[in-house]
Order: sequence, then structure tokens, then C-alpha cells
Amino acid sequence: MGDVTALAEEQLSALAAIVGADRVLDGPAGAEQYGRDWTRAHVPAPCAVVLPGSIAEVQSVVRYARRAGLAIVPSGGRTGLSAGAVAARGELVLVLDRLNGIDDFSPVDRTVRCGAGVVTAELQAYAEAKGLFYPVDFASAGSSQVGGNVATNAGGIKVIRHGMTRDWVVGVKLVTGTGELLDLNRGLIKNNAGYDLRHLVIGSEGTLGVIVEVTVSLADPPGDLAVMVLGVPDLGAIMDVLHCARGRLELHAFEFFSEEALARVVEHQELQRPFDTAAPFYALLEFAQPDEAALEAAMAVFEETVEQGWVLDGCVSQSVAQAQSLWRLREDISETISRWTPYKNDISTRVSDVPGFLAEVDAVVSEHYPDFQIIWFGHIGDGNVHLNVLKPDELPMDEFQARCGEVSRWVFEIVQRHGGSVSAEHGVGLLKKEYLSYSRSETEIELMRGIKRVFDPDGIMNPGKIFDL
Amino acid sequence: MGDVTALAEEQLSALAAIVGADRVLDGPAGAEQYGRDWTRAHVPAPCAVVLPGSIAEVQSVVRYARRAGLAIVPSGGRTGLSAGAVAARGELVLVLDRLNGIDDFSPVDRTVRCGAGVVTAELQAYAEAKGLFYPVDFASAGSSQVGGNVATNAGGIKVIRHGMTRDWVVGVKLVTGTGELLDLNRGLIKNNAGYDLRHLVIGSEGTLGVIVEVTVSLADPPGDLAVMVLGVPDLGAIMDVLHCARGRLELHAFEFFSEEALARVVEHQELQRPFDTAAPFYALLEFAQPDEAALEAAMAVFEETVEQGWVLDGCVSQSVAQAQSLWRLREDISETISRWTPYKNDISTRVSDVPGFLAEVDAVVSEHYPDFQIIWFGHIGDGNVHLNVLKPDELPMDEFQARCGEVSRWVFEIVQRHGGSVSAEHGVGLLKKEYLSYSRSETEIELMRGIKRVFDPDGIMNPGKIFDL
Repeated sequence: MGDVTALAEEQLSALAAIVGADRVLDGPAGAEQYGRDWTRAHVPAPCAVVLPGSIAEVQSVVRYARRAGLAIVPSGGRTGLSAGAVAARGELVLVLDRLNGIDDFSPVDRTVRCGAGVVTAELQAYAEAKGLFYPVDFASAGSSQVGGNVATNAGGIKVIRHGMTRDWVVGVKLVTGTGELLDLNRGLIKNNAGYDLRHLVIGSEGTLGVIVEVTVSLADPPGDLAVMVLGVPDLGAIMDVLHCARGRLELHAFEFFSEEALARVVEHQELQRPFDTAAPFYALLEFAQPDEAALEAAMAVFEETVEQGWVLDGCVSQSVAQAQSLWRLREDISETISRWTPYKNDISTRVSDVPGFLAEVDAVVSEHYPDFQIIWFGHIGDGNVHLNVLKPDELPMDEFQARCGEVSRWVFEIVQRHGGSVSAEHGVGLLKKEYLSYSRSETEIELMRGIKRVFDPDGIMNPGKIFDL
Repeated sequence: MGDVTALAEEQLSALAAIVGADRVLDGPAGAEQYGRDWTRAHVPAPCAVVLPGSIAEVQSVVRYARRAGLAIVPSGGRTGLSAGAVAARGELVLVLDRLNGIDDFSPVDRTVRCGAGVVTAELQAYAEAKGLFYPVDFASAGSSQVGGNVATNAGGIKVIRHGMTRDWVVGVKLVTGTGELLDLNRGLIKNNAGYDLRHLVIGSEGTLGVIVEVTVSLADPPGDLAVMVLGVPDLGAIMDVLHCARGRLELHAFEFFSEEALARVVEHQELQRPFDTAAPFYALLEFAQPDEAALEAAMAVFEETVEQGWVLDGCVSQSVAQAQSLWRLREDISETISRWTPYKNDISTRVSDVPGFLAEVDAVVSEHYPDFQIIWFGHIGDGNVHLNVLKPDELPMDEFQARCGEVSRWVFEIVQRHGGSVSAEHGVGLLKKEYLSYSRSETEIELMRGIKRVFDPDGIMNPGKIFDL
């Protein structure tokens, strides 16, 4: 527990006058609860926590903070993995929990308006009750909030079919660093009237202002889906499988994991191997199966990829329960390997670059640290891989962490050579700030700083996240 | 022909040293050819026209222009309808025609890299030759260029299925107002490393810099499509039809036109009415028809909508030729009514707001000018309507134009009340600059100005377009 920077009594009173006395928390409990995200490297130390109950209150808080010279950290579900919602330097935490209304559903427009504090799973359930579907889904859907999803452009496991959060946002309300309210795009599908500031806000991690409301569009329910798991001899073959399957199957997910990952999941989660043949890598394909023709197409893909030597063995789900079991082989990896306190990295390249990228990372890590075991898995159909390096049991944690700092540099240098991204879906926050220049040129970073100054001239909105001013 | 503002001999020499002497045009012919778009309200008067042959030459031209205090108008296919590519104030026209390479096609990534000067139809043909599909399509595809499409976020007739140009851009290279080259997003699907400047550039109409290269993603070919035309008693019924059809048909287009539009097209284009029953409005649905089940679904939609009283009569294409004939009923409207030199406006609201919006515009126009005939048509499934007011034969043109100025104000006031857009797909340019505040708040416009200053501190990039600095 870090020191909680104290606010003067008059400052607390001023905030209480805006949001109500019981909505201002200035003790360690509030700091602990609201002062950080799922990362644990930073000790929370906000000056106070406020829970406004309306957009107008958010504006008033921001205006007060600006006058008082306080920095603001917007706080949603705090499930972030890059320390974007950490308040470790005496910031005022602005909690969006109370802006949690879902309304203005339009069946014709297929849109619905959400307060920033609506939990992702609530939105998903709301859409389902309307016979529709909110397709952005990921492990933290039960506690992440819509505003935070937009602030970080959350991705997940269905991106190959449904895209990122960005693709479902048709309106955003933002309170800028000067307390002005922007009502961006207002649910329009076609709107070419000046710069699309909505897209600038999406993924800006709270540095341009506080997202207070989001209008999302909803999709048709996905219908029946089937899962196929294929064992492949190498990653190049996975690219061939992807190329073969696309255009013939309606892919909803195209994931991969290594034999090292599968072996651990099967051992520790009491799961069955999908088939007897062990393979260096596995592809997991989820695809729409509305009718027999779709299953025949899947079988044709399987046969053709086996014939070509791209696939060693495979299986396809015959029921929803089997599909779920096959998914667990992929989804349980993270939890399974957590006992080895792995070094993790979330990066992307162009899809076709993934095999080369992985080979280079494997080579450099095994050259320097032959005892390091790398577990690969991720959304390979989007070019997004999760790199996990397991800590050797005998290696002290601090030594492991020091070596992983080196690994980061090597990985990001390889990312840079491939023109990839140092953060595929988790954002930059504090965690990857020092590595941003591996993905973005100095000119781009300087432009970002300039844009931030336009939205937030005094630099009070989540300062120090993504880049330093 | 306007005056061509002369450059000093040394300035022409400096430009010739960059691009070659025969690539600098300083006479009226070059001005006439490259100095304006499809709008005709402005007289071209550039100081010169340059045709660089590489990105490096574009950078050099921009840097020279900055030093020499010259404004630049980037020039693509010049098919714009908002005077975004007009050089009427002594600007230097920077023509992208020679940046016309298509390369780096990746079958796994399904992406291809285009110079800004690649003609849309060439890209479409390229994709088709690869067994894929570039789905953004519109009337000017034969001469519009990819860079211009991105600069204006071009839409078109398949937006309900495939989105706008924005949705297909996975990479953009931009030369900023300082001559710096940005390489934005580089073909990545997942990239949450800082602000997505790519989306800021898309639709910025040349005011942030010169788009020199674009990487687009390609789709599966659409397969067999069928067309259904339905006569409806009112616009509310079209909303019901849309709601009924969505989720049951894979809609590729959902267009509408009025009886007034249909009557003129049938008379002047020697086309057949789709069916005998006349109706106030018609919906045109294009939908995927991969199999018998899809056709059965379409017939079920037809029967249900007739039963509900939402549809008076209808027909469905039985062949590709019939589908094309039905499309002509919609696509030939613009050309057909051009003989009445119509006042045109391209606006959008949320889809569900269209009926109310149209009724209000009809009411105010007919109240003040009962002899004005309004022809409505457009992409109603996207909330995008094209308003056309025909000039009464007896009314002198200048009087008609003056009255249409009034109509514009009324229309934009109604757009504003509905939270709509003063420009759905054509952009702002010079044409709608004075109306931008009906769609964007003063705060937003001030933010746009600030962003422009960040990219273009000396204000040389297409100044005066979208907004004045």
C-alpha cells in the first residue's frame, strides 16, 4: 500500500460539493480498490477517489481538477494489463461505475447507448435479450467496462470475424481536459463532416479526456459454431491452412498454440488431447456451421490440408460440449502456466510475418538463455501472438525479471524489424511507454503529444500514460 | 478559366529540379485539367501543377512549398463533389497520378499496397484477378483514385454490407505539412500502440497532409446476389421492412427511391416498371443468394411484409440480367434528373430518423415553395439520403439558386435537430464549410483546427477546406 497523497480539506469539500460527500474517498481502502488495474507493478497512491453520478458531474470534476492542478486517472473496470488505469503519483481517480445506464435501444438502427460504467457482460446480456449480439468478447468481460473497452480498443478472440471494439462504436461522448463535452458521431453510419475524432478517442487510454458514454452497434447472433483443431508441422503450414480455410469457411476465430502449451494444459486441467498425434503447433478454427454444406466445406479443408502435408492430424467438434472442450485447450493456457510466473508479451505483426517473427524470437532467446521455455499461443489469424517465457524453477525471481528485461528489448527489436506492434491489444499505459518508439516513429509520438495538448492543454488527463509530455 | 497566378521563374526551376521540367505545368491547360474536381462553382487558378513520381519527390515538393510559402492542393481523380480538390486561390496542385503502382499483394494477409494514384477500378480489377474483392464501389470508380478515396472516406452503394473506405484501410503513408513521412499502421490488424492516426487521416480531405500510399485489405467475392424491389406505402414501412429483412437476409444494399424518381427514370431511360402497382416509395434490397434457402428466406420476408401492410407489391430478380435492370431503376436516377439541374444535398441521420427527417424537409419546402418538386433517393439502410430539388422550368436559374440557399439552411437546421450529418459521404471541402457547425460543435471545430496545426504548422495543406484556420 503506497502513501495516499492527502488533499486539503477544502479540496475534498469542493469535490464533495460536486458528487456528494459519500462519493469522495480519501482513505487507503478507496486507493487500494480504485487506484490500479490488473497489473501489479505500481503501488496505488491517488490523492482521492471520486464517483460522479452524471456526465455533468464528470465535467465539474474535470473543471475543478484543472483549476486545482490535479491530474485525473479515469477508472473503469480496471482489468487493464498495461497499467493504463494506475494512479501511483497522487492523481485524482475518477470512477465511472455510476454511469451504468443502458438505454435508447433502437431495433432499426441496432444500436444501444451505454454509460461508460456498463460492464461488458451486461451489454452482452442486454443484446442477447434483444435477439442481437455484442461480439467483442474476452476473458475479463465480467468486470471490464464499456468505457474502458473503448479507451483501450479492446480486442479478444473473435477479431478475425468481428473486429475490435473500434468496429462497434458508432458514438462516443468525451469530456476533454478542459471539461468540454464532445458528442462524437451520434450513432451515424455515414458521416464525412470533418475529422472523425471518435476514432482518435478510441484507444487513447484516457489521455485525451474521460469517455462518459458510448453508443455501440449490435450484430446478428452468430448461430451454430463448430470447432476444428488441427496439428501442424510448422507455423508456415498454419499460414497455408489459414489461406485454404478463408473463403471456404466463415471463420469466427483462428487461434494457435504450441505443443508445449497443449502438454501443460492437458496435464494440469485434466483435459483430453484432441487426437493422438503430437504436433509442434496446433491451429484452432471456429467456424459458422449453419448447415451440412458448411461441415462438408470444413471436411474438404481438412482433407486438402492433410493431402498437402500442412496438417498431421485433426478433429472437429460434433456437439456444443465438444466445441467447448476444444476451446478449453486454448483458453486454459494462461491460467495453467501462471504457476511458472511467466514473462508475458502481447505483440503483433502482419499475419504472414508471424512464422518469421516467432523463429527469430525463439532463436535469440534460446541462444542467450537455453533454459528458458517459451510458450506460444494467441490469435494468429490476426497476427497477434502472446509470448510467454516460463521462469525456470531454480532461477531467482529478480534474476528472471532482469533477464526478461533483456528479452523485451530483443523482442521489440524484432517487432520493429517486422513493422509490427509492441502492443497488439493491451495498450501502452505505463507498461510499454518506454518501448513505444519500437512501433511508432519519433515524428508520430511528437504528433500524439501535440494532439494531447489540443484536447488537454494543461496535461491533466491520465498524464504519463502512453508517452511523457 | 480563372487567372493562373504566376510563379517566379526561379520557383518553377526549383520545382522542376525536384520532379523534372516536363512535370511542372504552369499554363492554363494544366490548371483546367488539374485545378478542380467535379464541382463547377469555383474557377481553377493554381500557381502551378506538379506531378511527382515518388514519395521522396512528394516530400521534397512539400518542403519546398513550405519554404516558399505556397499552399498545396493534393489532386487525385478529382471526382469529388464538395470542392475538396479545387485550387482557386493560387495554390500549387500536387498531382498523385504517377504514384500508381499496385504491389506487395499477400494472399495470407489479403492485403495489397497501392500508390495514391491507383484508380479505384484498377484496384477492383486487381483484386478480382487474385480471386478476391475490393468492396468499396461507387459511380466514379473508373476515375477516382485510392488516395482520394481515403482522403474523403468514400462510401457508395455497398456500405450496409461492407462499410466505408475507412473499413478497408490497414495502412496509410502520409506526407505531413512539414514534409515528414508517416507510415501508419503498416497493414496490422491489431495495433493498440498509441493513437490511431490512420483513422484521423482518413476523411481529412488533404488538410493534414498528402496521402501517398495506402494498404487495403480485400474480401471474399460476394457470390451470387439477387435483387428485390418492394413498393411501400410510406417511409415508416421501409423501416419495418429493413428490420424484418435484417438477420434473415445477408443484405448487400438497402436503397430507396420515391415514385417521382421512378416515374422519371422509367420514362426517360426506357425501362419497365418493376410491377404495376404504383407506391409512394420503393425499397431495393440486394442480398446474397448462395442457395435455395436464401431465396426462400427472401420470399418469407416478402410475404410477411405484405401481410403486415408494409409492402404493397414487389418483385425479385430471377437472373443476373434482371437484377441489373432492377438496379438501373435506382442507379439511373441521378443522370435522369440532371436535365432539371437539380439542387442536390447529401445528408445522413440515424437510420430510424430518416422518415421523420424527410417529412420535415418535405413540409418546410412545400410550405415555402409549393412548386418545387423534391426527388428523394439514397442509401436508406445507412441513413444516407440524397435530396434533389428540381428547378421548375419557368424559374430563372439565379432565382432558383437563391431559393436553394434558403433550402440548404432549412435542411441543415433539420439535420441538426436530428443529430445528423451535413455530409454523409461527399465530405465538406469548400462546398459545405459554412454549414459544418450544423453537425459539429464549435469545440469540435476548434479541436480540428488545433489538430491541423499539429500536422501542418504553417497551414499549407489544402487550406480553407473543411474549415478556415
